[in-house]
Amino acid sequence: MRKIKKFSAPEPSMRRLPAYLHVLSRIFKENQTFVSCTTISRQLRLDPTQVRKDLALTGIVGKPRVGYPVEELIGNIKAFLGWDIQRNAVLVGVGSLGTAILGYQQFRLYGLNIIAAFDRDPAQIGRNIFGVNVYPIEKLPEIAVRHQIELGIITVNADSAQEVADLMIRGFIRGIWNFAPKPLEVPNEVVVENALLSVSLGVLTSKLKQIESNRTS
Amino acid sequence: MRKIKKFSAPEPSMRRLPAYLHVLSRIFKENQTFVSCTTISRQLRLDPTQVRKDLALTGIVGKPRVGYPVEELIGNIKAFLGWDIQRNAVLVGVGSLGTAILGYQQFRLYGLNIIAAFDRDPAQIGRNIFGVNVYPIEKLPEIAVRHQIELGIITVNADSAQEVADLMIRGFIRGIWNFAPKPLEVPNEVVVENALLSVSLGVLTSKLKQIESNRTS
Repeated sequence: MRKIKKFSAPEPSMRRLPAYLHVLSRIFKENQTFVSCTTISRQLRLDPTQVRKDLALTGIVGKPRVGYPVEELIGNIKAFLGWDIQRNAVLVGVGSLGTAILGYQQFRLYGLNIIAAFDRDPAQIGRNIFGVNVYPIEKLPEIAVRHQIELGIITVNADSAQEVADLMIRGFIRGIWNFAPKPLEVPNEVVVENALLSVSLGVLTSKLKQIESNRTS
Repeated sequence: MRKIKKFSAPEPSMRRLPAYLHVLSRIFKENQTFVSCTTISRQLRLDPTQVRKDLALTGIVGKPRVGYPVEELIGNIKAFLGWDIQRNAVLVGVGSLGTAILGYQQFRLYGLNIIAAFDRDPAQIGRNIFGVNVYPIEKLPEIAVRHQIELGIITVNADSAQEVADLMIRGFIRGIWNFAPKPLEVPNEVVVENALLSVSLGVLTSKLKQIESNRTS
Protein backbone atom coordinates (compact mmCIF):
# COMPACT_ATOMS: atom_id res chain seq x y z
CA MET A 1 0.00 0.00 0.00
CA ARG A 2 1.40 3.35 -0.93
CA LYS A 3 1.38 6.01 1.71
CA ILE A 4 -0.83 8.92 0.81
CA LYS A 5 0.86 12.27 1.16
CA LYS A 6 -1.93 14.39 2.55
CA PHE A 7 -0.59 17.86 1.69
CA SER A 8 2.32 17.64 -0.68
CA ALA A 9 3.24 21.31 -1.13
CA PRO A 10 5.08 23.28 1.54
CA GLU A 11 2.78 25.90 3.04
CA PRO A 12 5.17 28.87 2.49
CA SER A 13 5.10 28.10 -1.26
CA MET A 14 1.32 27.78 -1.25
CA ARG A 15 1.13 31.13 0.51
CA ARG A 16 3.12 32.83 -2.25
CA LEU A 17 1.03 31.50 -5.16
CA PRO A 18 -1.88 33.99 -4.84
CA ALA A 19 0.58 36.90 -5.10
CA TYR A 20 1.99 35.41 -8.32
CA LEU A 21 -1.55 35.22 -9.62
CA HIS A 22 -2.10 38.95 -8.96
CA VAL A 23 1.07 39.84 -10.84
CA LEU A 24 0.26 37.45 -13.70
CA SER A 25 -3.29 38.79 -14.10
CA ARG A 26 -1.88 42.26 -14.67
CA ILE A 27 0.69 40.94 -17.14
CA PHE A 28 -2.04 39.01 -18.96
CA LYS A 29 -4.17 42.18 -19.24
CA GLU A 30 -1.19 43.89 -20.87
CA ASN A 31 -1.36 41.20 -23.58
CA GLN A 32 2.03 39.67 -22.82
CA THR A 33 2.11 35.97 -23.72
CA PHE A 34 5.33 34.97 -21.96
CA VAL A 35 6.83 36.00 -18.64
CA SER A 36 10.19 35.28 -17.03
CA CYS A 37 10.89 34.22 -13.47
CA THR A 38 12.96 37.35 -13.02
CA THR A 39 10.07 39.65 -13.94
CA ILE A 40 7.77 38.01 -11.40
CA SER A 41 10.42 37.90 -8.68
CA ARG A 42 11.36 41.56 -9.17
CA GLN A 43 7.76 42.75 -8.82
CA LEU A 44 7.33 40.82 -5.59
CA ARG A 45 10.87 41.30 -4.29
CA LEU A 46 11.45 37.58 -4.05
CA ASP A 47 14.41 35.40 -4.91
CA PRO A 48 14.08 34.16 -8.56
CA THR A 49 15.17 30.64 -7.60
CA GLN A 50 12.41 30.54 -5.00
CA VAL A 51 9.85 31.71 -7.57
CA ARG A 52 11.02 29.02 -10.03
CA LYS A 53 10.65 26.31 -7.38
CA ASP A 54 7.19 27.53 -6.35
CA LEU A 55 5.94 27.64 -9.94
CA ALA A 56 7.36 24.16 -10.65
CA LEU A 57 4.97 22.83 -7.99
CA THR A 58 2.05 23.64 -10.29
CA GLY A 59 3.52 21.47 -13.07
CA ILE A 60 4.35 24.37 -15.42
CA VAL A 61 7.35 24.01 -17.72
CA GLY A 62 9.19 27.18 -18.76
CA LYS A 63 10.97 27.65 -22.11
CA PRO A 64 14.64 28.67 -21.97
CA ARG A 65 15.12 32.37 -22.80
CA VAL A 66 11.35 32.85 -23.31
CA GLY A 67 9.88 32.10 -19.91
CA TYR A 68 6.47 30.74 -18.98
CA PRO A 69 3.33 30.97 -21.11
CA VAL A 70 1.26 33.45 -19.05
CA GLU A 71 -2.23 32.05 -19.65
CA GLU A 72 -1.19 28.46 -18.99
CA LEU A 73 0.67 29.51 -15.84
CA ILE A 74 -2.43 31.31 -14.52
CA GLY A 75 -4.47 28.17 -15.21
CA ASN A 76 -1.95 25.92 -13.47
CA ILE A 77 -1.76 28.10 -10.36
CA LYS A 78 -5.55 28.31 -10.15
CA ALA A 79 -5.86 24.53 -10.49
CA PHE A 80 -3.18 24.00 -7.87
CA LEU A 81 -4.96 26.31 -5.42
CA GLY A 82 -8.27 24.61 -6.12
CA TRP A 83 -9.63 27.80 -7.67
CA ASP A 84 -10.65 26.11 -10.91
CA ILE A 85 -13.66 24.56 -9.15
CA GLN A 86 -16.78 26.47 -8.05
CA ARG A 87 -17.62 25.68 -4.43
CA ASN A 88 -20.81 26.65 -2.63
CA ALA A 89 -20.17 28.43 0.64
CA VAL A 90 -22.02 30.02 3.55
CA LEU A 91 -20.88 32.79 5.87
CA VAL A 92 -21.85 33.17 9.52
CA GLY A 93 -21.67 36.56 11.23
CA VAL A 94 -22.54 39.62 9.13
CA GLY A 95 -20.61 42.21 11.15
CA SER A 96 -18.06 44.47 9.44
CA LEU A 97 -15.66 41.67 8.56
CA GLY A 98 -18.43 39.37 7.31
CA THR A 99 -19.83 42.23 5.22
CA ALA A 100 -16.36 42.96 3.80
CA ILE A 101 -15.99 39.34 2.70
CA LEU A 102 -19.47 39.24 1.17
CA GLY A 103 -18.57 42.34 -0.84
CA TYR A 104 -15.18 41.17 -2.03
CA GLN A 105 -15.93 40.36 -5.68
CA GLN A 106 -12.48 38.87 -6.25
CA PHE A 107 -13.40 35.74 -4.28
CA ARG A 108 -15.86 34.72 -7.01
CA LEU A 109 -12.91 34.41 -9.39
CA TYR A 110 -11.41 31.98 -6.90
CA GLY A 111 -14.43 29.70 -7.07
CA LEU A 112 -16.00 30.92 -3.82
CA ASN A 113 -19.76 31.02 -4.35
CA ILE A 114 -21.35 32.34 -1.15
CA ILE A 115 -25.02 31.45 -1.44
CA ALA A 116 -26.28 32.33 2.06
CA ALA A 117 -25.30 34.24 5.17
CA PHE A 118 -26.41 33.64 8.75
CA ASP A 119 -26.61 35.65 11.91
CA ARG A 120 -28.13 35.42 15.36
CA ASP A 121 -29.15 39.10 15.53
CA PRO A 122 -32.87 39.49 14.54
CA ALA A 123 -32.04 42.94 13.09
CA GLN A 124 -29.77 41.32 10.51
CA ILE A 125 -32.09 38.50 9.47
CA GLY A 126 -33.90 39.08 6.19
CA ARG A 127 -31.31 41.60 4.99
CA ASN A 128 -29.66 41.23 1.62
CA ILE A 129 -25.95 42.08 1.66
CA PHE A 130 -24.24 42.31 -1.72
CA GLY A 131 -26.86 39.96 -3.14
CA VAL A 132 -26.68 37.40 -0.33
CA ASN A 133 -29.65 36.82 2.00
CA VAL A 134 -29.19 36.63 5.77
CA TYR A 135 -30.96 33.73 7.53
CA PRO A 136 -31.32 32.78 11.21
CA ILE A 137 -28.36 30.71 12.36
CA GLU A 138 -30.54 27.68 13.29
CA LYS A 139 -31.33 27.15 9.60
CA LEU A 140 -27.68 26.51 8.74
CA PRO A 141 -27.52 22.68 8.80
CA GLU A 142 -30.69 22.33 6.72
CA ILE A 143 -29.67 24.91 4.09
CA ALA A 144 -26.12 23.53 3.97
CA VAL A 145 -27.35 20.03 3.22
CA ARG A 146 -29.95 21.17 0.69
CA HIS A 147 -27.43 23.24 -1.33
CA GLN A 148 -24.46 20.88 -0.89
CA ILE A 149 -22.38 23.52 0.79
CA GLU A 150 -18.68 22.64 0.90
CA LEU A 151 -17.21 25.69 2.62
CA GLY A 152 -18.16 27.58 5.76
CA ILE A 153 -16.79 31.01 6.64
CA ILE A 154 -16.84 31.97 10.33
CA THR A 155 -16.80 35.71 11.04
CA VAL A 156 -18.36 35.67 14.52
CA ASN A 157 -16.48 36.43 17.73
CA ALA A 158 -14.31 33.87 19.54
CA ASP A 159 -17.04 32.90 22.04
CA SER A 160 -19.51 31.75 19.38
CA ALA A 161 -17.05 30.19 16.94
CA GLN A 162 -17.16 26.58 18.17
CA GLU A 163 -20.95 26.56 18.23
CA VAL A 164 -21.02 27.81 14.63
CA ALA A 165 -18.43 25.19 13.61
CA ASP A 166 -20.63 22.48 15.17
CA LEU A 167 -23.62 23.62 13.09
CA MET A 168 -21.44 23.58 9.96
CA ILE A 169 -20.32 20.03 10.72
CA ARG A 170 -23.98 18.98 11.18
CA GLY A 171 -24.53 20.42 7.68
CA PHE A 172 -21.69 18.21 6.31
CA ILE A 173 -19.46 21.18 5.48
CA ARG A 174 -15.92 19.92 4.76
CA GLY A 175 -13.84 23.07 4.83
CA ILE A 176 -13.99 25.86 7.41
CA TRP A 177 -12.40 29.28 6.89
CA ASN A 178 -12.20 30.57 10.44
CA PHE A 179 -11.66 34.28 11.16
CA ALA A 180 -12.45 33.96 14.87
CA PRO A 181 -9.36 34.00 17.11
CA LYS A 182 -10.15 30.58 18.57
CA PRO A 183 -8.88 27.10 17.64
CA LEU A 184 -11.81 24.88 16.60
CA GLU A 185 -12.43 21.25 17.45
CA VAL A 186 -13.57 19.40 14.35
CA PRO A 187 -13.57 15.79 13.12
CA ASN A 188 -10.42 14.66 11.29
CA GLU A 189 -11.98 14.80 7.84
CA VAL A 190 -12.85 18.50 8.15
CA VAL A 191 -10.17 20.99 7.05
CA VAL A 192 -9.87 24.22 9.05
CA GLU A 193 -7.88 27.23 7.93
CA ASN A 194 -7.50 29.89 10.60
CA ALA A 195 -7.27 33.33 9.04
CA LEU A 196 -5.90 35.21 12.03
CA LEU A 197 -5.41 38.86 11.07
CA SER A 198 -3.12 39.15 14.07
CA VAL A 199 -0.66 36.74 12.43
CA SER A 200 -0.02 39.21 9.67
CA LEU A 201 0.25 42.09 12.17
CA GLY A 202 2.76 40.06 14.16
CA VAL A 203 4.95 39.50 11.10
CA LEU A 204 5.00 43.27 10.50
CA THR A 205 5.65 44.40 14.08
CA SER A 206 8.27 41.74 14.77
CA LYS A 207 10.18 42.83 11.67
CA LEU A 208 10.01 46.47 12.79
CA LYS A 209 11.25 45.53 16.22
CA GLN A 210 14.07 43.44 14.75
CA ILE A 211 15.20 46.40 12.64
CA GLU A 212 15.10 48.68 15.68
CA SER A 213 17.19 46.34 17.80
CA ASN A 214 19.71 45.91 14.96
CA ARG A 215 20.04 49.69 14.80
CA THR A 216 20.67 50.12 18.49
CA SER A 217 22.95 47.09 18.91
CA MET B 1 32.25 44.22 10.53
CA ARG B 2 29.60 41.79 11.59
CA LYS B 3 26.85 41.04 9.16
CA ILE B 4 23.46 42.10 10.45
CA LYS B 5 20.85 39.41 10.23
CA LYS B 6 17.79 41.40 9.25
CA PHE B 7 15.04 38.96 10.19
CA SER B 8 16.36 36.14 12.30
CA ALA B 9 13.24 34.04 12.90
CA PRO B 10 11.74 31.79 10.23
CA GLU B 11 8.41 33.22 9.07
CA PRO B 12 6.41 29.98 9.59
CA SER B 13 7.41 30.07 13.27
CA MET B 14 6.51 33.74 13.56
CA ARG B 15 3.14 32.95 12.01
CA ARG B 16 2.39 30.35 14.70
CA LEU B 17 3.22 32.56 17.69
CA PRO B 18 -0.08 34.53 17.75
CA ALA B 19 -2.02 31.27 17.99
CA TYR B 20 0.10 30.21 20.99
CA LEU B 21 -0.75 33.54 22.56
CA HIS B 22 -4.50 32.89 22.16
CA VAL B 23 -4.19 29.49 23.83
CA LEU B 24 -1.95 30.86 26.61
CA SER B 25 -4.30 33.75 27.39
CA ARG B 26 -7.09 31.27 28.03
CA ILE B 27 -4.82 29.12 30.20
CA PHE B 28 -3.72 32.23 32.12
CA LYS B 29 -7.35 33.18 32.76
CA GLU B 30 -7.89 29.71 34.24
CA ASN B 31 -5.19 30.58 36.79
CA GLN B 32 -2.73 27.93 35.68
CA THR B 33 0.85 29.00 36.34
CA PHE B 34 2.68 26.38 34.25
CA VAL B 35 1.93 24.82 30.91
CA SER B 36 3.53 21.99 28.97
CA CYS B 37 4.45 21.89 25.31
CA THR B 38 2.12 18.94 24.87
CA THR B 39 -0.89 20.88 26.17
CA ILE B 40 -0.27 23.73 23.72
CA SER B 41 0.46 21.43 20.79
CA ARG B 42 -2.66 19.32 21.43
CA GLN B 43 -4.96 22.36 21.44
CA LEU B 44 -3.55 23.60 18.14
CA ARG B 45 -2.99 20.16 16.58
CA LEU B 46 0.69 20.82 16.07
CA ASP B 47 3.76 18.70 16.58
CA PRO B 48 5.13 19.17 20.16
CA THR B 49 8.73 19.36 18.88
CA GLN B 50 7.73 22.14 16.53
CA VAL B 51 6.03 24.02 19.37
CA ARG B 52 9.14 23.64 21.56
CA LYS B 53 11.36 25.04 18.80
CA ASP B 54 9.03 27.97 18.13
CA LEU B 55 8.83 28.90 21.81
CA ALA B 56 12.62 28.63 22.20
CA LEU B 57 12.91 31.49 19.68
CA THR B 58 11.40 33.83 22.26
CA GLY B 59 14.13 32.97 24.77
CA ILE B 60 11.85 31.12 27.21
CA VAL B 61 13.33 28.27 29.23
CA GLY B 62 11.01 25.46 30.32
CA LYS B 63 11.40 23.43 33.49
CA PRO B 64 11.59 19.62 33.13
CA ARG B 65 8.30 17.93 34.12
CA VAL B 66 6.70 21.31 34.97
CA GLY B 67 6.69 23.15 31.67
CA TYR B 68 6.80 26.86 30.95
CA PRO B 69 5.76 29.61 33.36
CA VAL B 70 2.59 30.89 31.62
CA GLU B 71 2.85 34.59 32.42
CA GLU B 72 6.53 34.81 31.46
CA LEU B 73 5.87 32.90 28.24
CA ILE B 74 3.07 35.33 27.29
CA GLY B 75 5.45 38.24 27.96
CA ASN B 76 8.23 36.68 25.88
CA ILE B 77 5.97 35.99 22.89
CA LYS B 78 4.56 39.53 23.02
CA ALA B 79 8.06 41.01 23.16
CA PHE B 80 9.19 38.80 20.29
CA LEU B 81 6.25 39.89 18.13
CA GLY B 82 6.88 43.52 19.01
CA TRP B 83 3.54 43.67 20.85
CA ASP B 84 5.09 45.01 24.06
CA ILE B 85 5.45 48.46 22.46
CA GLN B 86 2.56 50.85 21.72
CA ARG B 87 2.76 52.12 18.15
CA ASN B 88 0.69 54.93 16.69
CA ALA B 89 -1.05 53.95 13.48
CA VAL B 90 -3.38 55.37 10.84
CA LEU B 91 -5.83 53.54 8.59
CA VAL B 92 -6.80 54.56 5.07
CA GLY B 93 -10.09 53.40 3.55
CA VAL B 94 -13.09 53.11 5.89
CA GLY B 95 -15.08 50.58 3.86
CA SER B 96 -16.25 47.33 5.48
CA LEU B 97 -12.78 45.92 6.00
CA GLY B 98 -11.39 49.21 7.34
CA THR B 99 -14.36 49.47 9.70
CA ALA B 100 -13.83 45.88 10.87
CA ILE B 101 -10.20 46.61 11.71
CA LEU B 102 -11.09 49.84 13.53
CA GLY B 103 -13.58 47.87 15.62
CA TYR B 104 -11.30 44.97 16.45
CA GLN B 105 -10.48 45.70 20.09
CA GLN B 106 -7.93 42.90 20.28
CA PHE B 107 -5.42 44.90 18.23
CA ARG B 108 -5.02 47.38 21.10
CA LEU B 109 -3.61 44.55 23.21
CA TYR B 110 -1.03 44.07 20.47
CA GLY B 111 0.19 47.65 20.74
CA LEU B 112 -1.73 48.93 17.72
CA ASN B 113 -2.98 52.42 18.57
CA ILE B 114 -5.00 53.69 15.59
CA ILE B 115 -5.29 57.44 16.13
CA ALA B 116 -6.80 58.57 12.82
CA ALA B 117 -8.55 57.21 9.75
CA PHE B 118 -8.62 58.68 6.24
CA ASP B 119 -10.85 58.39 3.22
CA ARG B 120 -11.39 60.12 -0.09
CA ASP B 121 -15.21 59.91 0.05
CA PRO B 122 -16.69 63.22 1.37
CA ALA B 123 -19.57 61.25 2.94
CA GLN B 124 -17.09 59.48 5.23
CA ILE B 125 -15.07 62.51 6.28
CA GLY B 126 -15.91 63.83 9.73
CA ARG B 127 -17.39 60.51 10.85
CA ASN B 128 -16.24 58.87 14.05
CA ILE B 129 -15.87 55.09 13.75
CA PHE B 130 -15.27 53.18 16.97
CA GLY B 131 -13.77 56.34 18.48
CA VAL B 132 -11.52 57.15 15.51
CA ASN B 133 -12.10 60.30 13.41
CA VAL B 134 -12.09 60.15 9.61
CA TYR B 135 -10.05 62.88 7.83
CA PRO B 136 -9.56 63.74 4.15
CA ILE B 137 -6.77 61.69 2.62
CA GLU B 138 -4.66 64.76 1.73
CA LYS B 139 -4.13 65.43 5.43
CA LEU B 140 -2.28 62.15 5.94
CA PRO B 141 1.38 63.23 5.65
CA GLU B 142 0.87 66.22 7.96
CA ILE B 143 -1.03 64.27 10.64
CA ALA B 144 1.41 61.36 10.39
CA VAL B 145 4.40 63.60 11.04
CA ARG B 146 2.70 65.53 13.84
CA HIS B 147 1.70 62.36 15.74
CA GLN B 148 4.83 60.34 14.93
CA ILE B 149 2.86 57.62 13.23
CA GLU B 150 4.86 54.42 12.76
CA LEU B 151 2.30 52.16 11.11
CA GLY B 152 -0.04 52.65 8.17
CA ILE B 153 -2.92 50.31 7.38
CA ILE B 154 -4.14 50.24 3.78
CA THR B 155 -7.73 49.05 3.28
CA VAL B 156 -8.47 50.74 -0.05
CA ASN B 157 -8.85 48.92 -3.37
CA ALA B 158 -5.90 47.79 -5.49
CA ASP B 159 -6.03 50.82 -7.81
CA SER B 160 -5.52 53.38 -5.03
CA ALA B 161 -3.06 51.41 -2.90
CA GLN B 162 0.23 52.75 -4.32
CA GLU B 163 -0.98 56.34 -4.07
CA VAL B 164 -1.88 55.79 -0.41
CA ALA B 165 1.49 54.13 0.25
CA ASP B 166 3.25 57.18 -1.28
CA LEU B 167 1.38 59.50 1.11
CA MET B 168 2.37 57.27 4.03
CA ILE B 169 6.02 57.41 2.99
CA ARG B 170 5.81 61.22 2.76
CA GLY B 171 4.56 61.08 6.37
CA PHE B 172 7.64 59.01 7.37
CA ILE B 173 5.62 55.92 8.20
CA ARG B 174 7.99 52.94 8.52
CA GLY B 175 5.67 49.94 8.48
CA ILE B 176 2.76 49.34 6.09
CA TRP B 177 0.09 46.72 6.66
CA ASN B 178 -1.36 46.32 3.19
CA PHE B 179 -4.75 44.64 2.66
CA ALA B 180 -5.01 45.72 -1.00
CA PRO B 181 -4.24 42.91 -3.48
CA LYS B 182 -1.39 44.86 -5.06
CA PRO B 183 2.38 44.72 -4.45
CA LEU B 184 3.63 48.13 -3.29
CA GLU B 185 6.80 49.95 -4.29
CA VAL B 186 8.44 51.44 -1.21
CA PRO B 187 11.96 52.53 -0.21
CA ASN B 188 14.16 49.80 1.28
CA GLU B 189 13.82 51.04 4.85
CA VAL B 190 10.02 50.68 4.84
CA VAL B 191 8.60 47.29 5.86
CA VAL B 192 5.49 46.07 4.02
CA GLU B 193 3.36 43.16 5.14
CA ASN B 194 0.76 42.11 2.60
CA ALA B 195 -2.29 40.68 4.33
CA LEU B 196 -3.88 38.96 1.38
CA LEU B 197 -7.09 37.26 2.50
CA SER B 198 -6.90 35.17 -0.66
CA VAL B 199 -3.70 33.53 0.63
CA SER B 200 -5.60 31.97 3.47
CA LEU B 201 -8.45 30.94 1.15
CA GLY B 202 -5.88 29.31 -1.17
CA VAL B 203 -4.41 27.26 1.67
CA LEU B 204 -7.91 25.98 2.49
CA THR B 205 -9.07 25.20 -1.05
CA SER B 206 -5.78 23.61 -2.12
CA LYS B 207 -5.94 21.29 0.88
CA LEU B 208 -9.53 20.34 0.00
CA LYS B 209 -8.53 19.66 -3.59
CA GLN B 210 -5.55 17.58 -2.47
CA ILE B 211 -7.82 15.44 -0.28
CA GLU B 212 -10.26 14.98 -3.16
CA SER B 213 -7.56 13.85 -5.57
CA ASN B 214 -6.12 11.47 -2.98
CA ARG B 215 -9.58 9.93 -2.60
CA THR B 216 -10.10 9.37 -6.28
CA SER B 217 -6.55 8.18 -7.07
